[in-house]
Amino acid sequence: MTAPDLILLNPADSVAVATRALEAGAVLRAGDWSGTALDPIPSGHKIAIRALALGDPVLKYGQVIGAATQPIAAGAHVHVHNLDMGDARIDSVIGSAYRPTAVTEDATFQGIVRPSGKVGTRNYIGIIASVNCSATVCRYIAEAFKGNALADFPNVDGVVAITHGSGCGMSGSGEGLTLLRRTLRGYADHPNFAGILLIGLGCEVNQVAPLADSLAARGDGLLARMTIQEEGGTRETVDRGIALVKAMLPAANAITRQAVSARHLTVGLQCGGSDGYSGITANPALGAAVDRLVRAGGTAILSETPEIYGAEHLLTARACAPAVADTLLGQIRWWEEYTRQHKGDMNNNPSPGNKAGGITTILEKSLGAVAKAGGTGLMDVVGYADPVETRGLVFMDTPGYDPVSATGQVAGGATLICFTTGRGSTYGCKPTPSLKIATNGSLFKRMSMDMDFNAGVILDDGISVEAAGEALFRLMLDTASGTPTRSESHGLGDNEFVPWQLGAVM
Amino acid sequence: MTAPDLILLNPADSVAVATRALEAGAVLRAGDWSGTALDPIPSGHKIAIRALALGDPVLKYGQVIGAATQPIAAGAHVHVHNLDMGDARIDSVIGSAYRPTAVTEDATFQGIVRPSGKVGTRNYIGIIASVNCSATVCRYIAEAFKGNALADFPNVDGVVAITHGSGCGMSGSGEGLTLLRRTLRGYADHPNFAGILLIGLGCEVNQVAPLADSLAARGDGLLARMTIQEEGGTRETVDRGIALVKAMLPAANAITRQAVSARHLTVGLQCGGSDGYSGITANPALGAAVDRLVRAGGTAILSETPEIYGAEHLLTARACAPAVADTLLGQIRWWEEYTRQHKGDMNNNPSPGNKAGGITTILEKSLGAVAKAGGTGLMDVVGYADPVETRGLVFMDTPGYDPVSATGQVAGGATLICFTTGRGSTYGCKPTPSLKIATNGSLFKRMSMDMDFNAGVILDDGISVEAAGEALFRLMLDTASGTPTRSESHGLGDNEFVPWQLGAVM
Ligand SMILES: [Ca+2]
Ligand SMILES: [Ca+2]
Ligand SMILES: [Ca+2]
Ligand SMILES: [Ca+2]
Ligand SMILES: [Ca+2]
Repeated sequence: MTAPDLILLNPADSVAVATRALEAGAVLRAGDWSGTALDPIPSGHKIAIRALALGDPVLKYGQVIGAATQPIAAGAHVHVHNLDMGDARIDSVIGSAYRPTAVTEDATFQGIVRPSGKVGTRNYIGIIASVNCSATVCRYIAEAFKGNALADFPNVDGVVAITHGSGCGMSGSGEGLTLLRRTLRGYADHPNFAGILLIGLGCEVNQVAPLADSLAARGDGLLARMTIQEEGGTRETVDRGIALVKAMLPAANAITRQAVSARHLTVGLQCGGSDGYSGITANPALGAAVDRLVRAGGTAILSETPEIYGAEHLLTARACAPAVADTLLGQIRWWEEYTRQHKGDMNNNPSPGNKAGGITTILEKSLGAVAKAGGTGLMDVVGYADPVETRGLVFMDTPGYDPVSATGQVAGGATLICFTTGRGSTYGCKPTPSLKIATNGSLFKRMSMDMDFNAGVILDDGISVEAAGEALFRLMLDTASGTPTRSESHGLGDNEFVPWQLGAVM
Repeated sequence: MTAPDLILLNPADSVAVATRALEAGAVLRAGDWSGTALDPIPSGHKIAIRALALGDPVLKYGQVIGAATQPIAAGAHVHVHNLDMGDARIDSVIGSAYRPTAVTEDATFQGIVRPSGKVGTRNYIGIIASVNCSATVCRYIAEAFKGNALADFPNVDGVVAITHGSGCGMSGSGEGLTLLRRTLRGYADHPNFAGILLIGLGCEVNQVAPLADSLAARGDGLLARMTIQEEGGTRETVDRGIALVKAMLPAANAITRQAVSARHLTVGLQCGGSDGYSGITANPALGAAVDRLVRAGGTAILSETPEIYGAEHLLTARACAPAVADTLLGQIRWWEEYTRQHKGDMNNNPSPGNKAGGITTILEKSLGAVAKAGGTGLMDVVGYADPVETRGLVFMDTPGYDPVSATGQVAGGATLICFTTGRGSTYGCKPTPSLKIATNGSLFKRMSMDMDFNAGVILDDGISVEAAGEALFRLMLDTASGTPTRSESHGLGDNEFVPWQLGAVM
């Protein structure tokens, strides 16, 4: 196959997207349409593939992105001169686009079934710091298990220190502590950990004991806690910590992977360093893979609230129940208040750079981000780091900043992260594997040792979004079964635990 | 010497502090006074050592902590029943307590004079991440120089990665970015670094190029920058980073320590995990050492604004100029607004636990914290991570949370941190050495491998505050000259860079 001139993102669309600068008069085809370009079409810009009357809705991603502000001929350039949102923003009723998704696909992966019934994709031991003051001790203990130290325990993927900058200098009753505790609890209960050692300093606001007491039970010796002040110092804590982890290794090693349904897979969706291709290659391909995952009974977590702002009704229209939509709208109001208090703003309108790249409306921009979640119904909306317990597509409120967002998803139970990027990323997030999906072939080649999947084949080789999504879904299952990602091969992921910090630092 | 029953913190004081529970009738002495206890005096509580009339000011630390609410006989217990703040709070005029301090002491340390004229106490190479996305790459480069890699460069103390959770998902024009940049710039220009390598991902809000361009010049090859996206991935960046650092090593190694005046020493003052002894042993001893440092022309940075709240007039009374006091009062107002917005409060009043321990008023509590800054004039007040360029005692606005506060002080140029603790701490903060000062002998013994100085000798052995301060000042000069602290011997300090985070995370 060769590079197509146009991409049709959805069969219902009234526009296609130019993959390169096209001259007026160029002979083109997209889906059922063939014809000539009536105007020059810059790369990434839209071309009408059917005639539109004044006021007609314009569809991209199979969704309304606005209405024609004048008659548009097939073959014409579609942009700010003949398209705006009109009242498309309000033309959406909660639940109106919701269609239940039947679980029709059989798909399995080789998972690690924990005593709790939860299924992991990796098998780490975690050393979790309650406060920055114990970070170094946690890392020292983890470092003792690098090199050949795990040679006798081939089923253990590693010992990872989960450290951060917070845990004290905060109110003992505010949302800051609530959020940190919820995040740490999500990690401590994560099925990718066989065992957990919690370590505090001793005098911090975020005490170890109540955190430990809130955790699910684990097998003998697989949940331990210490404070440096009780142990009597750095060396004593490190020495005892190493002994505690060593004692966990035989039980941690005694796991076998077994075929389980993809309904036990929870995938966090991420986008970082997006480019003009994100919305036409990597995100739609990931969306196609997510649709398959949902049809196989699995769960995908969409997040990054600021990036869907202004187009939240696209999601509430897909909500399975009014309460689900209400929760999302409440989160949106929270963000408006939060940014107002911080003298920022939530403007997610297309920037001049977006517009130069062919993005006309906020709906179109948000659809490019939401495309990675596919088209199934929105089954639940949860807060940051809340346990995700509903199957299907779930929204979790997080910032757009990648490490903070993915930390919330992993805390919520994500056992795989899929991260689309146009500029490049080296993101890893132990204990959860992270697949990096390049939007374009030149990035995939340039950062070949960091990228896992090249969605640029949609542009470069004319592979369909659907076919790319199928290949990506297979890679997701393989990765969940234990095949290492690029970032895992590099050993990345030890420094990307970044809990969302709210509330005053005192 | 044996353990005294009472401590007199200042010759001018009208009260002394019981070092243990004393019975009524006990025969006691403190300073010039001798007599008997008229009441039982709990450990840590105050006893009058002269007769006070109704309304007489009560002095502790040589300062007014309140007024007698009834006549008090010498030997009586002084607490909430006969002492309150009255109008002591407003009885303070800006600058009224300011006395210029002449530089009368000669003291030197073996410092590293940089081409800029600034003087370092350590000689590291720093790998600084602009964003969390480059944290792992920075750490990989630093790790390549562990073990024997620096054997040929004995004057290089190490290669340290300065990484954090921020740098993107933030406004490009808000105070959050301003604060992060100022902090990173302070580290990148720090005299304890011989060379700096700045590493970004490439697409982050906090770009490497403007940060690099804002830095002071360094010698050939001693300031380098990279982005992972430009280098083409993790491995390429790590490989080239290692080569860049290797190229810095010969020049970094070519330093010699030389005797320089203590006026080139800048000491950050910290208190974490305080206990009932902090205000009567470690903080006063550190204050005595700071007075010596100031008399020798050096600089001390007091911080932790929330911990002086309610007693800021004690500092503004010592201000050398009205503008200096005004800046501090402006910071106090900022904190009131900040905590109000976060639904917290700035209450620094003695807690029930403080009161049980013998602390009666907010002035007394704050004086216990401020005691570590000694008694000299307040010469300047600066913002978080601002360069400290005035000699003498300077206040820097920071939260009380230790890693955030010390990060600001190091960014401001602190070449030594002195950290008092009653509960115990393992704090290190490369590239700056951190001395840990125990408030009591049992902590010093229990965490002997983490504690550098035992201020508990004031209680246990009757060593005077002045003598303990003199010993601590000598330890400060030795440490500045290269003698490793306990945390340096343990290699701690690689995980405690925690810039103050303000503004919305988007
Ligand atoms: Ca010990
Ligand atoms: Ca993002
Ligand atoms: Ca993200
Ligand atoms: Ca490459
Ligand atoms: Ca503190």
